[in-house]
Amino acid sequence: MSRQIRFGLFLLGTGSHISGWRLPGAIDGFEDISEITAICQEAERGLFDLIFMGDNLNADPAAHPSYCSRLEPLTMLSAVAMNTRHVGLGATASTTYGDPWTLARGFASLDHISGGRAAWNSVTTSNPQAAANFGTTHPDHARRYEMSGEFIEVVKKLWGAWDEGALVKDPESGTYFDAGKIHAVDHEGPFFKVKGPVNISRPPQGRPLILQAGGSEPGQELAAKHADVVFTVTQDRGEAAEFYAGLKARLQKNGRRESDLVILPGVMPVVGHTEAEARAKLARLMSFVDDETALGMLSERFNTDLRGHNLDGPIPDLGKNDAYHAFAKAMLSKAKRENMTLRDLYSLVAAARGHWVLCGSAEQVADTLQEWFESGAADGFNVMPGWFMDGFTDFIDLVLPILQERGLYKTAYAEGTLRDKLGLPA
Amino acid sequence: MSRQIRFGLFLLGTGSHISGWRLPGAIDGFEDISEITAICQEAERGLFDLIFMGDNLNADPAAHPSYCSRLEPLTMLSAVAMNTRHVGLGATASTTYGDPWTLARGFASLDHISGGRAAWNSVTTSNPQAAANFGTTHPDHARRYEMSGEFIEVVKKLWGAWDEGALVKDPESGTYFDAGKIHAVDHEGPFFKVKGPVNISRPPQGRPLILQAGGSEPGQELAAKHADVVFTVTQDRGEAAEFYAGLKARLQKNGRRESDLVILPGVMPVVGHTEAEARAKLARLMSFVDDETALGMLSERFNTDLRGHNLDGPIPDLGKNDAYHAFAKAMLSKAKRENMTLRDLYSLVAAARGHWVLCGSAEQVADTLQEWFESGAADGFNVMPGWFMDGFTDFIDLVLPILQERGLYKTAYAEGTLRDKLGLPA
Repeated sequence: MSRQIRFGLFLLGTGSHISGWRLPGAIDGFEDISEITAICQEAERGLFDLIFMGDNLNADPAAHPSYCSRLEPLTMLSAVAMNTRHVGLGATASTTYGDPWTLARGFASLDHISGGRAAWNSVTTSNPQAAANFGTTHPDHARRYEMSGEFIEVVKKLWGAWDEGALVKDPESGTYFDAGKIHAVDHEGPFFKVKGPVNISRPPQGRPLILQAGGSEPGQELAAKHADVVFTVTQDRGEAAEFYAGLKARLQKNGRRESDLVILPGVMPVVGHTEAEARAKLARLMSFVDDETALGMLSERFNTDLRGHNLDGPIPDLGKNDAYHAFAKAMLSKAKRENMTLRDLYSLVAAARGHWVLCGSAEQVADTLQEWFESGAADGFNVMPGWFMDGFTDFIDLVLPILQERGLYKTAYAEGTLRDKLGLPA
Repeated sequence: MSRQIRFGLFLLGTGSHISGWRLPGAIDGFEDISEITAICQEAERGLFDLIFMGDNLNADPAAHPSYCSRLEPLTMLSAVAMNTRHVGLGATASTTYGDPWTLARGFASLDHISGGRAAWNSVTTSNPQAAANFGTTHPDHARRYEMSGEFIEVVKKLWGAWDEGALVKDPESGTYFDAGKIHAVDHEGPFFKVKGPVNISRPPQGRPLILQAGGSEPGQELAAKHADVVFTVTQDRGEAAEFYAGLKARLQKNGRRESDLVILPGVMPVVGHTEAEARAKLARLMSFVDDETALGMLSERFNTDLRGHNLDGPIPDLGKNDAYHAFAKAMLSKAKRENMTLRDLYSLVAAARGHWVLCGSAEQVADTLQEWFESGAADGFNVMPGWFMDGFTDFIDLVLPILQERGLYKTAYAEGTLRDKLGLPA
């Protein structure tokens, strides 16, 4: 079978657009498991490969509403697992504010509960506000990535600590475990000391998938070593293709093939039956954006307070800032190319939190995705609907059938675990 | 309505009896969410008030099988929430190996997911093996309880950090939050420094219930201050009544009424249509116990390696040991009363991990529970079936109708959250 486009759903209950919840009939929260389940079932109807649930470890009412009021990812996706069958379940968890034993165990548990659909979106937590909730100070970018590398190593060791066949369960002899197949990991490194094993047997996938989003230099090194799926922030096909080639090139030295890593740029599609209809939808969405909300979001994304600046003047110097490294790079590169004002920049960020907005007729959207996919810019896309449900349903009902007709998208789920479905090595 | 008996289900997938899984047809694991859901639905059929899921933070194949191979509690109960409607969901989480922000958030999430049924079984983690999984050393009993007191305070503050009405969600004005109703907690104590708030709104119950099992002096002080439900290990009605009266007496100084705390001794019922039938079932179960398994369990429970001792000699001096404080006290007190050998003690522990075994006809079991309930030894019981499903179903089908007929047990669930159902103050 020829290569096909992969789709992830980036899930924020109120949509990726900062004011998506204001559209009449839109889902207006991220704490109602019935609404969240309905979205995930819709993703499954659209044969999506996986759901990405981002996360943050602070509460800032000035940021995106679904950052400040949200269910915790692992509990949420365990609940979702019970009413879905195929879609992968990717939960974000931090390597800076957490510990490897608890994390390895939690994702192993989700993997058992979901029948092999768990994925860990490994992040270092860029927002320094998190530190105050954990009684500590925020490590700098380089240190966070050093910690993260070791953290992931430990987690992988813990997932591997139980061999196949360790659970014997023979009622005749009374042998429950083959203790020789359950191993301590005895990890001792600069940041972590973990004996192991975990008290849960080998996950159905062997190990849950590892997702990663860091676009910085150490982020890419980490991804090339450990990640099964990378999602990226991009505004430009050329930049995306450059990133794609660069990251794939890093795989070989880690003994991995190009097909072992799936790269998914983030995109907020706004789709209409015609281009005019799509444009009108986007204009409607943007009409909800007010200065305060948008600057709050922008300040959060750049980790710099931008309130009070002249909106129609140039973008102020943001100084040296290691938060949202790749994100800031993509944004500011586009802003420079297009000679943006601060207002232009905030509109861009308000629309899809800085991700690429693809607005057009279904045919146009399908053409563009195909173009990216076939020109070496993407293995698929992390779809970030601006609002739910219409903003997602439109994409499923209008765009996917076109891609299916072109042989670019599957028409049914494959069997097996998430790892099997994505054709990733064990 | 007069006072009625409360029932909790203490859930270990392979049953509380160490060899329960060896009975033909018994559930033989604790990692299959379908089997676990079926057990929880059975609890709901029996109108049980809540499920207690214990936990441990180490993997020891010599201990109880369901300690070493198990789903993680919060992910498990979130999944269970989707296929139950009424039963309370009590997950164990440690105040020694965790952090208050993550814990408060996780249980708030379970409370939202379950529609107000979450309960936190707060433990200090007595088994010192846990420490090695977290790169640290195990704090002693006194210190663990000091940490625990502060930890619980912080968690309660975090649950209270969002006022009612903080979520405005007005699409007209674009106001999503009333930021004045979302408060930092700014906690700074000897053990924890937490700014808050959490990024999830006020839990449906106001705050999830707090469960507690510590029977030691500091454990009782903590329970009298914070716990909504206490479950206890006991082997004797007199001792249970003394504990009950003592703990209830501690409530007043904390400004609480006696009815604000529900005390549930643990009991493993083995029920038959006749006493003889019940005895035969228990004998069958006990026939599966071998020396090695039972001594492994006993060593784990007392945190002292007892392998190699003469089984038919006296119980060796266990020295000073702060692990399983209340548990060890109850066990050794009974052993002394009854002049037990080590073999007698291990049989007792193998049967129900040291908890009270109540074996008899349905009528006898109902009579005894009623006697305990009416004589001030219990508000209800934490039921620990030796195996699933029969070991549980027998109790539901044979014992509960007798108690219902006597007006001692409800015939339907009340409406509302778990807190409402138990009549506990907000």
